[in-house]
Formats: sequence, structure tokens, C-alpha cells
Amino acid sequence: MTDAVQIVLAKRPAGDVTADCFREEKVSLPTPADGEVLVRSRFLSLDPYMRPRMTELRSYTPPFELDKPLTGGSVGEVAESKNPRFAKGDTVMGMLNWASHTLHDGKGLRKIDPAAAPLSAHLGVLGMPSFTAWYGVRHICKPKAGETVFVSAATGAVGQVAGQLAKLAGARVVGCAGGEDKCAWAVREAGYDACFNHKTEHDVGAVLDKLCPQGIDADFENVGGKIFHAVFERLNNFGRVAFCGAISEYQDQTPMAGPPKMFTIVQRRLTLQGFIVSDHVALMGEFVSEIGGLVKEGKLKSRETVVDGLARAPQAFMGLLKGENFGKLVVQV
Amino acid sequence: MTDAVQIVLAKRPAGDVTADCFREEKVSLPTPADGEVLVRSRFLSLDPYMRPRMTELRSYTPPFELDKPLTGGSVGEVAESKNPRFAKGDTVMGMLNWASHTLHDGKGLRKIDPAAAPLSAHLGVLGMPSFTAWYGVRHICKPKAGETVFVSAATGAVGQVAGQLAKLAGARVVGCAGGEDKCAWAVREAGYDACFNHKTEHDVGAVLDKLCPQGIDADFENVGGKIFHAVFERLNNFGRVAFCGAISEYQDQTPMAGPPKMFTIVQRRLTLQGFIVSDHVALMGEFVSEIGGLVKEGKLKSRETVVDGLARAPQAFMGLLKGENFGKLVVQV
Repeated sequence: MTDAVQIVLAKRPAGDVTADCFREEKVSLPTPADGEVLVRSRFLSLDPYMRPRMTELRSYTPPFELDKPLTGGSVGEVAESKNPRFAKGDTVMGMLNWASHTLHDGKGLRKIDPAAAPLSAHLGVLGMPSFTAWYGVRHICKPKAGETVFVSAATGAVGQVAGQLAKLAGARVVGCAGGEDKCAWAVREAGYDACFNHKTEHDVGAVLDKLCPQGIDADFENVGGKIFHAVFERLNNFGRVAFCGAISEYQDQTPMAGPPKMFTIVQRRLTLQGFIVSDHVALMGEFVSEIGGLVKEGKLKSRETVVDGLARAPQAFMGLLKGENFGKLVVQV
Repeated sequence: MTDAVQIVLAKRPAGDVTADCFREEKVSLPTPADGEVLVRSRFLSLDPYMRPRMTELRSYTPPFELDKPLTGGSVGEVAESKNPRFAKGDTVMGMLNWASHTLHDGKGLRKIDPAAAPLSAHLGVLGMPSFTAWYGVRHICKPKAGETVFVSAATGAVGQVAGQLAKLAGARVVGCAGGEDKCAWAVREAGYDACFNHKTEHDVGAVLDKLCPQGIDADFENVGGKIFHAVFERLNNFGRVAFCGAISEYQDQTPMAGPPKMFTIVQRRLTLQGFIVSDHVALMGEFVSEIGGLVKEGKLKSRETVVDGLARAPQAFMGLLKGENFGKLVVQV
């Protein structure tokens, strides 16, 4: 028996996620059965895609279950093992509960080398968000030298990598983020050509006209809503949209309409393509070798926010949905 | 000097195209200069894409000019030639004026064999609309056996071919058209599995639920508007939309909003791709050999409406925008 703390989904949010959607519980976990491992969480990744899972009925991942622990990409250590693939003390990565400990059947869990990089990096610049950015840029945005690429949520875990990859491909890269400090970091550290603060710039169209005078050739879309509408209007002929997320719409109780003049898609021969990186695990090796190399060479900057303690995960997640984090958001469990 | 009759754009429409947008004129055309040919029109193609050209400022083709003849894909005969590529009596195809005669510089004009098929077929099942259908089905919809493909404007010049190509690929094909006679033809002649009359079925979503119980894997979109919104909502994971036109939106004075929940594009990994067939002329040979073969073997049915006399072109075009034609619409000049 192991005493564990876990956070369960207490109720489904209607509109904004509120603190009473979560409940912290103490539980006693049994000793692992054959094939199982008990994993002690070290870092938990908080990501926008978790918001649709709190409510959506028809989504790409099944919704979180009521009164069960939420789950997320995590790094942890094997505390006990009855699975021949893992030994006590191994550092592992996979989907774990929002919990101090998770009893796991080993499926989808993989060993990582704790000396290779800071543990939290496996959840960010070496992990899923970075893989997402890489897929969207390489396979959908396909930026060419001299083109203009727009990245919404420019300093988010995904956006910061997408912007840098587009820049490395020779594109002019423009983004938006929610704060002056984020915009300054985007330009100074991540190499964006320009970044505007969407919390203070209310006429998104006018700002885009100024910052993207040649229009937009590719859009890495994380935000949706009015920012996407303004970008859509400014896409050039043969423009590509890598539709990765729509965080601005996740808490809408009345679904927002799509951009007007869908015929624009025909006139300008646009491609709008939605994607979910877990469909593309076959490309993981290619991603790791390319991005791993860039990180080692210091060509890819990353920024993260570490929140201390599992108990603060709900608050941090609510903040994430409002754009309060800066870069990749992880919880040190 | 040749006396010619031509139809010019008298004013740009606001909303519905009206008769006073056109003016018939008699003109005297000079003898061809070096390099020019004088072409006597035989058939003029009327197509929905002409409507945006009457107003749009930023479109894929330049707008029609005020007080100048409208132009369209046509078949005609060379009446006089000062161009070494053409001889008097040649049958040619290309963009000609809405006119009895056009003075042409020869660019984009090509000779056709008048014995190969009825002349009007070069504007339909062997021409641009068919090429459009072929490109959208082969390169965007990519139907697989057992999938469900939806075609709006199912019996239009483009739709009728798109539906048949999807059917030949083994898909279940469902369409909509504006009239019981069209729907009956779609099922009986073109092999659609089902076709509903969008003029009498007002709850498009409910009809689609009934006719496409497995959802929709690919949509060949000609209509846009509320039909597209209902289709969008029912697209399956990895659904493809070949965005070819949006005729229901062309006469809107207030642009219609796009479908709500654009995040659906991410959740279901949809691809929405706009295309214009003139970008793909390099594939013309492949198209001709495939479609020419199917037509010869009798595997591709086509239906056309022939309007008699250039003077009736404006009225016929207004009818086209309201869906009054049945199949490919041509004017016998």
C-alpha cells in the first residue's frame, strides 16, 4: 500500500474552469499487480488540450471521467515494478495521473535518460509540444525563405518552437502573445521579427497590416477566435494554416462563428489543416534527431514556468487558459 | 471590318445580378492585325465563377471591366487569321467574348477536332468543369472504397462529374440539388446513392443524418452557406473538403459567417482545401486521357442545358445563379 495524493475531476466546467471543478483526494494505492508499475511523479505537464477533455463528448481523446484523477504527460520515477520492462529507480515518461503516485500498466510508458536534459525539458522542448510545433511547421506550414509566417500564442510551449523553426527556415516570423514581457522575449530570444500584445492591441487587423505588409503565407494557429479571423483575411494565395488549437474558444459557452467569406478559401487556394500530433508518432525518430540536434547546438531557445506542488495544479491550469503562464507550464510534483 | 454583337458589363451588381447589369452592343471589328485571329463564337460556357468576377476586387481572375464585353470559355471557328498557328475554318477553344465574334491574339487558344465530340462537350464533360471535378476528387477528396462522399450542386457541370468519379472509386455518394427532377437524374443516371432537394428539405442536418449515417469522409463543395455548415458538422475524422465554389454566397451583400466551432478542424483533423483548376494545367494530359477514356466507354454520363442565342445569355446566367439550369449550361451563339 502506498499513500498517494491525487486531483480528480469534481465537476465538468460550464464556461470558465473554476476551482470547484477539482478535488484533492488522499488514496491508498495497492501494491502493483503483475505487469504494473508504481510511478512517483516528478513533473506534470499542463496543456490547453486538457480543457476540451474536461467537457467534450466527441473529441480526439476521451473526456476525463468524473471523480477520477485527471491525467497528463508526466515524468516520474519507478517506485515499484512488477513489469519486466522497468526497474525500480528508472526515470520514465508517459501519461500519469495528476497525482503523487500512479499505478500504471506500463503501456505508453518509456524510459528516459535523466542525465540527458533537465527532466522538465522532456515535457517541453524535447517533448510533445515541440513535436507538435515541428509537425505543424514541417508538414503543413512548410515555410519558404522570404515568406511571412504568423504564430498565435507565440511564446506558448508550442508556439515558441514553431516560431523558431519557421525562422530557421528563412521566413519572416510574426507572432502575438498576451503581455509585453512575452513579446519582448519572443523578439529578443526566440528571434521573432515582430510580436504584438493581443491584450492591449485591440484592432488585430490593423496591427497585422502593419507587421505583415506582404500578407501571411502560413499561420500556425493556436488561438482561434478573432485573432484567427483577422489572420484568415490576410492569408496570401496558397496560404497554409496549421490548425493546432483554438484556446480562445475553449471556454465559450456559445460557439463562435467561423470567419466570414469562406469563399476566400477558394479564391486564394488556401489549405486549412487540423492535426493532432499523436497521429504522427511514426515520425518521432525524425523529430528527436532534428530537434535534439538544434537544442544541443543552442539553436532552439525555450522558456518554461515551473509551478511548485501538485496542489497548485488546478490554479495553474486555470491561469494557462487565461494566458498567465510564460512558455511551457509544468508542475513540480 | 466585321459587324459583331457583344454583351458588355453595364454596371456591377449589388446583390442579385439584374438584367441592367448587361448591355447588348453592335460593334464593327477591324480586320485582324499580325498575330491576331477573328473567331466566330459557336458555344459560350456560363459558369458560377463569373459572378465573383462581376464585382470582386481581389479574386483569382481579374474582375470584368465595366463597359467591356464579358468573357468566358467558348468554342468557335476561325473566320480570319493573321496568326500562323490558325487557319480559316479551324475549330478552336479558349476564352472569347460574350459576342458573335472576338478579335483574339491567339494566346490560350487551341485547336480542337470538331469530329471528336459534340462541340459543347468541350465546355463540359471534356472541358473545364470536368477537369475541375477530376482535380478535386483525385487530389483532395481522395475517396476510398466504403467512404461517404458528399457533393453539393450534385447535377451541376462540376458536381455531376465529381459524384460519378467518387462513385467509380467505390465510395457511397450523396448529393443535393435544387429540384426533384435533378435528384432523380442524379440517382438514376449518375449513380448517386442518394440525392436530396435542398429547395424543399429545409433541415439539411436531419437529411444528412439520414442519408449519411456513417458521417461524411469527403465533401466536394460547390455551394457553401448553410449546406456547407451542416456538412462540416458531420465530417468524420480525417475528413477532406475540396472547396471548389460557394455559389450560395456569391450574391450575399452581408458576408455569411463561417461554420461555428472551427476547433472541429483540429479535433477531427480535417483538411479544407480551396483550389482553382487553372493552377493545375500541367495535369491536363492526365485528365484528358482518364476522362476521355471514361466518356468513350460510356462510364461518365453528362447532362447539359443549351440556351439558344447570345441575347439570352444574361437571363440564362441569372438563372444559373439561382440553380435554374440542369447540368452544364451553354449558350449556342
